[in-house]
Amino acid sequence: MTTREPLREPRQERSRTTRRKLIGAVVQCLAERGWQGTTVAEVAERAGVSRGAAQHHFPTREDLVVAAVEHLGDEQIAELRARAAALPAGPSRALPVAEMLLDLYAGETFRAALHLWVAASTDAGLRDVLLPLQARVGREAHRVAVELLGADESRPGVRETVQATLDLARGLGLANLLTDDTPRRRQIARQWATLLEPTVTATARPGAGVPGT
Amino acid sequence: MTTREPLREPRQERSRTTRRKLIGAVVQCLAERGWQGTTVAEVAERAGVSRGAAQHHFPTREDLVVAAVEHLGDEQIAELRARAAALPAGPSRALPVAEMLLDLYAGETFRAALHLWVAASTDAGLRDVLLPLQARVGREAHRVAVELLGADESRPGVRETVQATLDLARGLGLANLLTDDTPRRRQIARQWATLLEPTVTATARPGAGVPGT
Repeated sequence: MTTREPLREPRQERSRTTRRKLIGAVVQCLAERGWQGTTVAEVAERAGVSRGAAQHHFPTREDLVVAAVEHLGDEQIAELRARAAALPAGPSRALPVAEMLLDLYAGETFRAALHLWVAASTDAGLRDVLLPLQARVGREAHRVAVELLGADESRPGVRETVQATLDLARGLGLANLLTDDTPRRRQIARQWATLLEPTVTATARPGAGVPGT
Repeated sequence: MTTREPLREPRQERSRTTRRKLIGAVVQCLAERGWQGTTVAEVAERAGVSRGAAQHHFPTREDLVVAAVEHLGDEQIAELRARAAALPAGPSRALPVAEMLLDLYAGETFRAALHLWVAASTDAGLRDVLLPLQARVGREAHRVAVELLGADESRPGVRETVQATLDLARGLGLANLLTDDTPRRRQIARQWATLLEPTVTATARPGAGVPGT
């Protein structure tokens, strides 16, 4: 016992570092080689971790994927919240919020996720792994979008407008897959901000449209 | 010459039938097995065509894909136009048009295309084949959306709103990949129709918002 105790902390730390490395490597591997080219051995090599250590943490590539999707979903939402917190309040906020939300799926994380989703459409095992994750990550994204937009979902149509914003963001992520679609996405975000404002944030402007109030 | 002439018509017909069968089979094969599982031999077998005949028409699987994407893009647009032509004119048209456009990518064709697009993100050869097709099919979809919505693109923001409609439709196609997302898509279409109307079709209501005209 006495010889093991002092090792405990560093071992846990080492373990966390290994997990982090493996999760980073699986995303890179999925984005570059797809689900077909993603094996625990390949991911271990990219992470600079022994195959045995990798399999200790993640016995199958499905386990790796669950950890990666959860970790990245959380990370993305946290980053979004942090960036949004730095924005000024008021109407000048609408455009940067629209841009942030529509950029949500324009990067490597979405590219990796897309490989998984498409592979899952022809692989029932992977599909069963991904469906509950999709639901959880989707709910979190919805929650943060409501928060950033200051949306009042008790008003009719607002919930669907927030959902449409995220579905639009995923469609734009797809359009960014083979080419850099950023300039077009920026123009759509500008228009989206003007479409969103009266629907989503109407309660923020009491009396708007009622002359004399 | 005299022995070949009488054969000409049936041979051309047979050739068209073979192409049609192969194109149908490649889409089914992509949707079920992905790009990885799609070979000329596999497609020929599904189509009930000899491998030699298949290779005569389409030497590589990339050739098959170009023909399939073009054919299906055209077919989809033609079907959309026909369905839209059957709709009544006037404001009652907004909802069915929104539903039609947002359903555009909810089927097997989009599932097959998605396999190709994702495979192309890690396959430079396929990417070079798909990029010009993506541009052409995208332009056609935009043109038909403008037509169905009765959109006046000379007004600011209208072009981006039409683009957003199609990007949203693609995002909804993605959401329909692993589960049947139809009920949620219907609710979004309902809200989308109300968001679209003032922006896209404002010129169809002359004097709207200007009291006394």
